[in-house]
Amino acid sequence: MRFLFVSNSDSASAWQKALQQARPDITTMVYPQIGDPALIDYALAWRPPSGLLASLPNLKLIFSIGAGVDGLVDDPTYPRDIPLVRMVEWGLTEGMTDYVVWQVLSWHRQAVLYWRDQQAKRWKPRHRKVARERTVGILGLGVLGQDAAIKLAGLRFRVLGWSRNEKQVPDVECFHGEAGLVQVAAQSEILVCLLPLTNETVGILNRDLFAQMPKGACLINAARGRHLVEEDLLAALDSGQLSGASLDVFHDEPLPNDHPFWDRPELVITPHDASLTSPRTATQSIVDAIALCEAGKPVPNLVDFERGY
Amino acid sequence: MRFLFVSNSDSASAWQKALQQARPDITTMVYPQIGDPALIDYALAWRPPSGLLASLPNLKLIFSIGAGVDGLVDDPTYPRDIPLVRMVEWGLTEGMTDYVVWQVLSWHRQAVLYWRDQQAKRWKPRHRKVARERTVGILGLGVLGQDAAIKLAGLRFRVLGWSRNEKQVPDVECFHGEAGLVQVAAQSEILVCLLPLTNETVGILNRDLFAQMPKGACLINAARGRHLVEEDLLAALDSGQLSGASLDVFHDEPLPNDHPFWDRPELVITPHDASLTSPRTATQSIVDAIALCEAGKPVPNLVDFERGY
Repeated sequence: MRFLFVSNSDSASAWQKALQQARPDITTMVYPQIGDPALIDYALAWRPPSGLLASLPNLKLIFSIGAGVDGLVDDPTYPRDIPLVRMVEWGLTEGMTDYVVWQVLSWHRQAVLYWRDQQAKRWKPRHRKVARERTVGILGLGVLGQDAAIKLAGLRFRVLGWSRNEKQVPDVECFHGEAGLVQVAAQSEILVCLLPLTNETVGILNRDLFAQMPKGACLINAARGRHLVEEDLLAALDSGQLSGASLDVFHDEPLPNDHPFWDRPELVITPHDASLTSPRTATQSIVDAIALCEAGKPVPNLVDFERGY
Repeated sequence: MRFLFVSNSDSASAWQKALQQARPDITTMVYPQIGDPALIDYALAWRPPSGLLASLPNLKLIFSIGAGVDGLVDDPTYPRDIPLVRMVEWGLTEGMTDYVVWQVLSWHRQAVLYWRDQQAKRWKPRHRKVARERTVGILGLGVLGQDAAIKLAGLRFRVLGWSRNEKQVPDVECFHGEAGLVQVAAQSEILVCLLPLTNETVGILNRDLFAQMPKGACLINAARGRHLVEEDLLAALDSGQLSGASLDVFHDEPLPNDHPFWDRPELVITPHDASLTSPRTATQSIVDAIALCEAGKPVPNLVDFERGY
């Protein structure tokens, strides 16, 4: 069977090797060398050129590299009749939880202040809260949000979760809908965004939301850059409404050299690598999905194009 | 009943207020205003002047402010016939776990490298391990060590624990004795010291131990400054045998302005406040111990002067 690999952000050779090791009958074509378009059975893609996927007449499944699918379905030529698999695999989920818990603890423990003290050779002990006295909100209770929420609760944080539709997660106080968002924001000293990017969530991290949060709260955005209204974050930092933020994603990536975020000591910037879909951890889930597809059985983690994730 | 409070590192008024709120019959004398030494029933102390505690003829119990008691028993005049209570209370335990998990995640996720990238406006994504692929060693399996170990295991780290005598901790691979220390060191990519300071543990973090660790491993010392041979750490950083360390404790505190540690970018320095015994969280355990003492019942967390903790 023939795979098409198309992505500028990932290593074609690593995927090629991993796929062939897992299933020797896989041949991986790397865009732009696609050969006969009619021979391509599966595609593994991130931000493919517009029209490319629609030009493959015998495509059976498309795999999105990463949990988000906005980099595929934003293209109006995207072929919505072909099932699209979101790759939510253990490596991606666990890497994201590592990042979220690390950043939550960093704000909980005021890492930025201690770092500045150290630079100034300043010895300044601080009394502070322990985790059970701190409220953390998680926006998005998909696979990633649930795992991070449960691990934070396990560290004794009080955890609030928010999702579009009602959900239940052990040890997490769950809210949903518009009214629920206000309730979560109003209590969250640290607010984490792990939402999918859809028409309903674009710009959800904005001045109105920040105004409802406790004064001096912190934000962590590990989802998509366009969840955040960047100028609203700068204004909230200026006014002290927010005291800091960890950002892994941005409107423009790589973050341009002259972007004002770089010069903000209240920001912790990482280069969209909070968690990565790597061939090492994700290949098995691809091979499993192909086996189900070949057997005519339902494939898990298919995107619902109506809701957008 | 009469309490004597003696410490230069803690707030006398906060303790005075908290004790009196918890038990209105407590009068707290603050050193050096001790009144009649014969009227003092209990002492709450950290690094008291030599001979002070021995001069109180009717002392029933001594409480150490903090989990370690080296600041009391190091004094040769210390009255070893009076029971000494180590205050291992929930606030201290949970604050220490917050610190340890924060620092372990920071090394796991290479916080120092990302911080340097951010300062240089450098966008450099990195592939890396997830927690289940990382081995963390905990030296010391008392109340603090066990809690940190269990929480790290809950985050999917592989956790090894080491103690003087054999112990069992859920989800933690436990080792003990001298041979066990070598086994833990040899596997720990991140090694955490939460040992009591005794004759056997002074200088335990030294070049011989570092040489047994994996090349490029990291160290976290949240116990006592004298567990670490400071010049051995500098040498290990210079040779690359260790790639970094988080230090909350030092031989001299506050860390002197001209100490070489301040200028090391591979070190994360905090001012001996990884966790603090605060009146807010610890007063109840004092009041409970007094009630047991008054009722003639055994008081928990008494120090064994033979073993030194």
